[in-house]
Amino acid sequence: MAEPTTAPDAADTAQVRRVAEAAATASRRLALLSRAEKDAALEALADALLAATDEVVAANERDLDRGRAEGMAGSLQDRLRLDPDRVAAVAQALRDIAALPDPVGEVVRGSTLANGLQIRQVRVPMGVVGMIYEARPNVTVDAAGLGLKSGNAVVLRGGSAAAETNRALVGVLRRALEAHGLPADAVSLLEGGHGVVRALMTARGLVDLLIPRGGAELIQAVVTGSSVPVIETGVGNCHVYVDAGADLEEALAIAVNAKTHRPSVCNAAESLLVHRDVADAFLPKVLAALSAEGVLLHTDPVASASAEAAGVPHDPATEEHFATEFLGLEMAVGVVEDLDGAMSHIRRFGSGHTEAIVTEDRAAARRFVAEVDAAAVMVNASTRFTDGGEFGFGAEIGISTQKLHARGPMALPELTSTKWVVEGDGQVRV
Amino acid sequence: MAEPTTAPDAADTAQVRRVAEAAATASRRLALLSRAEKDAALEALADALLAATDEVVAANERDLDRGRAEGMAGSLQDRLRLDPDRVAAVAQALRDIAALPDPVGEVVRGSTLANGLQIRQVRVPMGVVGMIYEARPNVTVDAAGLGLKSGNAVVLRGGSAAAETNRALVGVLRRALEAHGLPADAVSLLEGGHGVVRALMTARGLVDLLIPRGGAELIQAVVTGSSVPVIETGVGNCHVYVDAGADLEEALAIAVNAKTHRPSVCNAAESLLVHRDVADAFLPKVLAALSAEGVLLHTDPVASASAEAAGVPHDPATEEHFATEFLGLEMAVGVVEDLDGAMSHIRRFGSGHTEAIVTEDRAAARRFVAEVDAAAVMVNASTRFTDGGEFGFGAEIGISTQKLHARGPMALPELTSTKWVVEGDGQVRV
Repeated sequence: MAEPTTAPDAADTAQVRRVAEAAATASRRLALLSRAEKDAALEALADALLAATDEVVAANERDLDRGRAEGMAGSLQDRLRLDPDRVAAVAQALRDIAALPDPVGEVVRGSTLANGLQIRQVRVPMGVVGMIYEARPNVTVDAAGLGLKSGNAVVLRGGSAAAETNRALVGVLRRALEAHGLPADAVSLLEGGHGVVRALMTARGLVDLLIPRGGAELIQAVVTGSSVPVIETGVGNCHVYVDAGADLEEALAIAVNAKTHRPSVCNAAESLLVHRDVADAFLPKVLAALSAEGVLLHTDPVASASAEAAGVPHDPATEEHFATEFLGLEMAVGVVEDLDGAMSHIRRFGSGHTEAIVTEDRAAARRFVAEVDAAAVMVNASTRFTDGGEFGFGAEIGISTQKLHARGPMALPELTSTKWVVEGDGQVRV
Repeated sequence: MAEPTTAPDAADTAQVRRVAEAAATASRRLALLSRAEKDAALEALADALLAATDEVVAANERDLDRGRAEGMAGSLQDRLRLDPDRVAAVAQALRDIAALPDPVGEVVRGSTLANGLQIRQVRVPMGVVGMIYEARPNVTVDAAGLGLKSGNAVVLRGGSAAAETNRALVGVLRRALEAHGLPADAVSLLEGGHGVVRALMTARGLVDLLIPRGGAELIQAVVTGSSVPVIETGVGNCHVYVDAGADLEEALAIAVNAKTHRPSVCNAAESLLVHRDVADAFLPKVLAALSAEGVLLHTDPVASASAEAAGVPHDPATEEHFATEFLGLEMAVGVVEDLDGAMSHIRRFGSGHTEAIVTEDRAAARRFVAEVDAAAVMVNASTRFTDGGEFGFGAEIGISTQKLHARGPMALPELTSTKWVVEGDGQVRV
């Protein structure tokens, strides 16, 4: 999906208004559902998806055919593919959401004031949550399920590559909701080009929250162009810093894991920074190990010398390399003077996602944790752990890299707002 | 301050960049201060303000002279005025902030994962908080104090009417910070016209959060035009709904208090809705009481008939009246069919600030609390209670009417974000 800069035309604006108003009406019903009602609906949606496996797989094959005809890369084809096993996994994810606690109604805090007023802050749904995302069609079902469980109606705008698949999935979900006695408009799919994205971004008062998921360009365009409140997700230029006080065996395992365990995701590491005191001992080993895993290495002058000496293929790192979220088997490698040098590099190039230090030096770890400004800061652990599933949240709608509302993995509570309820017996201000 | 639609010129953009970058540098220092250091600084700022009373009052008199020459309304002159008593009150507010708990460092939640990783979510400062506000100069000092206590650097853009006063106040605060060994750039004042506001609104990456405080037009312009994360504050088209099950004595006291206790603020009521079953019994009394307090009444046809019969002055209510935040002694009064009629009226005209029901009917109260979508919902209490001070927060930077991050009165914790800290001993993803 390219940058959605096209202005919305009247038809796009009208479509978004119609869909969002229907979603708002549905959301008022969803907000009042009990946990038992929502969980039963989630199970019904899972059953309906399984029953519709053939329909969904056929729609997905049409998307794949079109993609192949248009020269879609193999990795993208794989992300787009929904075979019967994947449909079953998507349905199971809905059952997993049903098993999670209901965030709605939780009393966050409360007290009785001196005048006898009882106040409490209660978790309530956001209302209408918009999502703009790219290829993977499982996001469609996850968003619908997380939305339903948190009492929100969702308005989805998936990538055009998955258009047929998303239409089939949302059709199944809407029919199942209706059959279950719930409003179909709890889940809606927007159709059309970038004008629709633009209309959704500016649907102020109709959409309570917009979450973009996808590449840096998409997220930047949504964040800067929206008048609707947005949560910025998932761009991760993550660093592993190997301190002078590191256990180098640990550092090797962490650097390789952070880079290669799943290079296409936002919590994969993109840069490796090494304290100069351990550069000679550490670089030959880590560069050889990364290279053996197929990682293309962009090395600064000191690291280049190490690579040269160790006979490891590499190319010279530019500033651009250090600024890039490769999302693949590439890594920028640099040597820093000290902890301050590492933190200032991270301040300059980091995207505020996840930053890791490897050290046995307690003072260095404490400074790194206190001073590095990111959604997650790791000591002696792989950056790959910044994840709703790993953190034990059971589900994740995205990883926020902004500071407002939610930061880090976002699960069900992050899809809610709060309301103050004040009960009295006639109190007035004096 | 009119709508800031002027595009920023290069000088405005450069000023905002320079000020915000200096603020960011200062904020990194502030983030690491202990509570004791921050509280001592707040006391030092209070002492400095008291010592500079003459300088501040003189600057304020220059603003007042200019205002009078330009025909400033008496009520605005009063909001702008800082006499020695008010300077003392502003200084005391800083000491009150010192006495509040420090939100920074609070562990919000945490656990030990199955693999031994220890995770905790810790409150951290936002970084650089921008504020755009209008006349009252006490906001300048409150914002600086709340910012310092929450570890944030603040970048202020006050109204032009208070330019000299704000310059004097910020000058005193900056000198006092420096004398206390802290960075002066913890508090900065932007100078210039609407282009500077525009530059601040689009200073993405330089400003972490922008809070507009002022009239509906200012807030709307900031919210829709900003690429920086914004919290929308304080537009309150608040309703009092008198249900069929109301104690009418209580209802009378609440309606009059909500309208007249302090009509110029956002939590004052603007509309009164009355269930038709109690209209005949309630309207003559409440209309007479409101009129006696000087309230100009805009009445719908049924309320008009009551006013007519009771000999109370009134004029016919239009839709525009029901949509207006009067911020003065005016009120729209309507009769509704039932609870659903009241809630649908509120859904249409409310601004999501505070909505009150007066009723002894438990079912009606429960439905109103569950279904009305607002930052605060009151049962048998005046709308005037939606306030950080009344809620026991001790201080308030504004009242959020949006659903993201904070909703209702915003105090110190709402000026913070969180960071996930993950500590391990070499864990990698498998």
